[in-house]
Amino acid sequence: MHSLNPADTSQNAVDSTGESSRLAPEHRKRLEELYQHLAELRDRSIGYPCNQKFDYSELYPFLDLTINNVGDPFSGSNFRMNTHEIEREVLTEFARWTEIPDDDYWGYVTNGGTEGNMYGLYLAREIHPDGIVYFSEDTHYSVAKILRLQHTRSIMIRSREGGEIDYEDLEESIKIHREVPPIIFVNVGTTMTGAIDDLYKIREILDRLCISRYYLHVDAALSGLILPFINNPPPWNFASGADSISISGHKMLGSPLPCGVALARKTHVERIARLVEYVGALDTTISGSRNAFTPLILWHALKQKGEIGFREIILNSLKVADYAVERLNEIGVEAWRHVNSITVVFPRPSAALLEKWILAPYGEIAHLIAMPNVTRDTIDHFVDDFEKDLITGSKAPKTDETK
Amino acid sequence: MHSLNPADTSQNAVDSTGESSRLAPEHRKRLEELYQHLAELRDRSIGYPCNQKFDYSELYPFLDLTINNVGDPFSGSNFRMNTHEIEREVLTEFARWTEIPDDDYWGYVTNGGTEGNMYGLYLAREIHPDGIVYFSEDTHYSVAKILRLQHTRSIMIRSREGGEIDYEDLEESIKIHREVPPIIFVNVGTTMTGAIDDLYKIREILDRLCISRYYLHVDAALSGLILPFINNPPPWNFASGADSISISGHKMLGSPLPCGVALARKTHVERIARLVEYVGALDTTISGSRNAFTPLILWHALKQKGEIGFREIILNSLKVADYAVERLNEIGVEAWRHVNSITVVFPRPSAALLEKWILAPYGEIAHLIAMPNVTRDTIDHFVDDFEKDLITGSKAPKTDETK
Repeated sequence: MHSLNPADTSQNAVDSTGESSRLAPEHRKRLEELYQHLAELRDRSIGYPCNQKFDYSELYPFLDLTINNVGDPFSGSNFRMNTHEIEREVLTEFARWTEIPDDDYWGYVTNGGTEGNMYGLYLAREIHPDGIVYFSEDTHYSVAKILRLQHTRSIMIRSREGGEIDYEDLEESIKIHREVPPIIFVNVGTTMTGAIDDLYKIREILDRLCISRYYLHVDAALSGLILPFINNPPPWNFASGADSISISGHKMLGSPLPCGVALARKTHVERIARLVEYVGALDTTISGSRNAFTPLILWHALKQKGEIGFREIILNSLKVADYAVERLNEIGVEAWRHVNSITVVFPRPSAALLEKWILAPYGEIAHLIAMPNVTRDTIDHFVDDFEKDLITGSKAPKTDETK
Repeated sequence: MHSLNPADTSQNAVDSTGESSRLAPEHRKRLEELYQHLAELRDRSIGYPCNQKFDYSELYPFLDLTINNVGDPFSGSNFRMNTHEIEREVLTEFARWTEIPDDDYWGYVTNGGTEGNMYGLYLAREIHPDGIVYFSEDTHYSVAKILRLQHTRSIMIRSREGGEIDYEDLEESIKIHREVPPIIFVNVGTTMTGAIDDLYKIREILDRLCISRYYLHVDAALSGLILPFINNPPPWNFASGADSISISGHKMLGSPLPCGVALARKTHVERIARLVEYVGALDTTISGSRNAFTPLILWHALKQKGEIGFREIILNSLKVADYAVERLNEIGVEAWRHVNSITVVFPRPSAALLEKWILAPYGEIAHLIAMPNVTRDTIDHFVDDFEKDLITGSKAPKTDETK
């Protein structure tokens, strides 16, 4: 008999046939060392959007089971050892937060942002086989990879300073190819600066060019779980015209396993479902075997924190981000952030600082992200190190000397 | 301070800030019920290739951490909270078992078979952009989905009775399209009957047609961890000419989370790497964020069982499969299996039996798979139920009455 009490999991050390499932001492030692190494890095990992504040030990007993969410979470599966019901509840919450009517959405829990973006771009391409994808140069590199894999025509658009798509360049480019439907890859929070492409401005362009056949996919990897919880968010979701949205689960919610949610208008998916049936593929998800544990993780986070909890968490992260900007400015580092973003951007620091702290450098800039596990204390330590580095470091960041 | 002792994981119930991470009683009750429901299904789940015999509780402490294997396991990542080293060790073992020289392979741990097949077909299409994919009608349905997503031309080939590809139909079809390189999707263990397409026969066809530009992708989802451990396996791996191979991790090894391994000749991947660099995509894996826990699971299974352990496990599964064939034949059910396969095929049983046992029916047939958790006892229970069902059931399977 198994129990949901995680303290009991050690009972499994000898399985029902009496065989030991333990590793040999040298292999256990290897794991211990790896664990210690990773745990030590944890507190200095502030450059990636991974909320490290979580505890899913209540769920560990499910790891005894070969659960698998193969198939469409809404239409059942022959393999009944699944968590489809939990998955649907998770999707319902995400649907509410992305403002799509209950009867008009479809989605599934993915392995992460790439699968969600792949899904949106796949839907778009099936609906507009001759379409061209437009995406800004600040778009995550995985999108270029997806487009290549999917053999979809695409055009990279300039970004404005700060990371938003350059609307003039977008309009010019669409104008040149008015004969084919544009598929616009919209960043709601770019990877490097957290910039948000404006859905209304994009739709104004389409209106001006009298384009009625188009598709808007939104990559809201991190911000998709920030914007629902702030007052007066910019236009970003289904209510503002999105056709599909990808949101990561391991970012804002926190998860030891990468995961995410792909959401799309049901009418689009039904169209694909017919095509999929035609080619004999039985389901509309991209992955066949699908992780059944990650829906439990997302469900746990949703139930345990609740909407009020999320509001508090987001508000606190925004405050910590402000604190980071302020403290970095105090030591002469030109740090800044976009409104509604917890990504704090600053000039690329020295190699030594990048060695000590896990930041995300790209070209001349780097950033830290005020995820819920990043506290004012963390910021103080980081700023202290940054300041020491500015004095002793060989490669100081370029700061504006007139300031 | 954390510990690798799984009994200690309950310490996390209150995190460092003193907040409780526990669910409310009603939500805990929900999980308890779900767990019991799934655990009850477990012993009657014999139709899917999921080894349920495992215990990875030694690894649970790693679920405290936001580890992520983003990027190429062989070239490092800015995000250092990864298990790339463990992943490389896992790949090294798989490389040995698939007989590819140490200096000529590349690979990564995937989210499951679909990603491995997608990777192989992506490599193939990049190498032969004008290529046509040939796959048998017994191929898993996800392949049609991948081909549609990737916009690759393809032709479905008839299967011979038993599930192997029809070599004559394959030869005829390739002959008609001799001007473009064939990309052959080779099943090493079909989903329904465990049939193995013969790599030598396929290469003979290519030789006869004087075709030098071609690509052979092998889907060895289940059998990729059976064939290395039996004597005189059929030709199936890199030594027999494969260009890439996909093997599932959650099938033969057993894992609560779907996972797999994609392996390919390094020369092919290097070619892609250059293209990937050109489009600005920084890595050659399909997923961006990648699960860092599943490599630990695979590593644990490899270290804990070892090669001798695997040989014993496979031998035992083959014996249990034989026992199932024998027992089913005794009650008049025409069950059979392919040599080297642990998949036992029989006529589709009644709906009642399909309701009680988790089998995998498809059209007129169904199967059970003698995974390591399936014992002679399980078979006895199943055969008893089958026999009762034959007597009382409304829809008896069609058995050959002369037998």
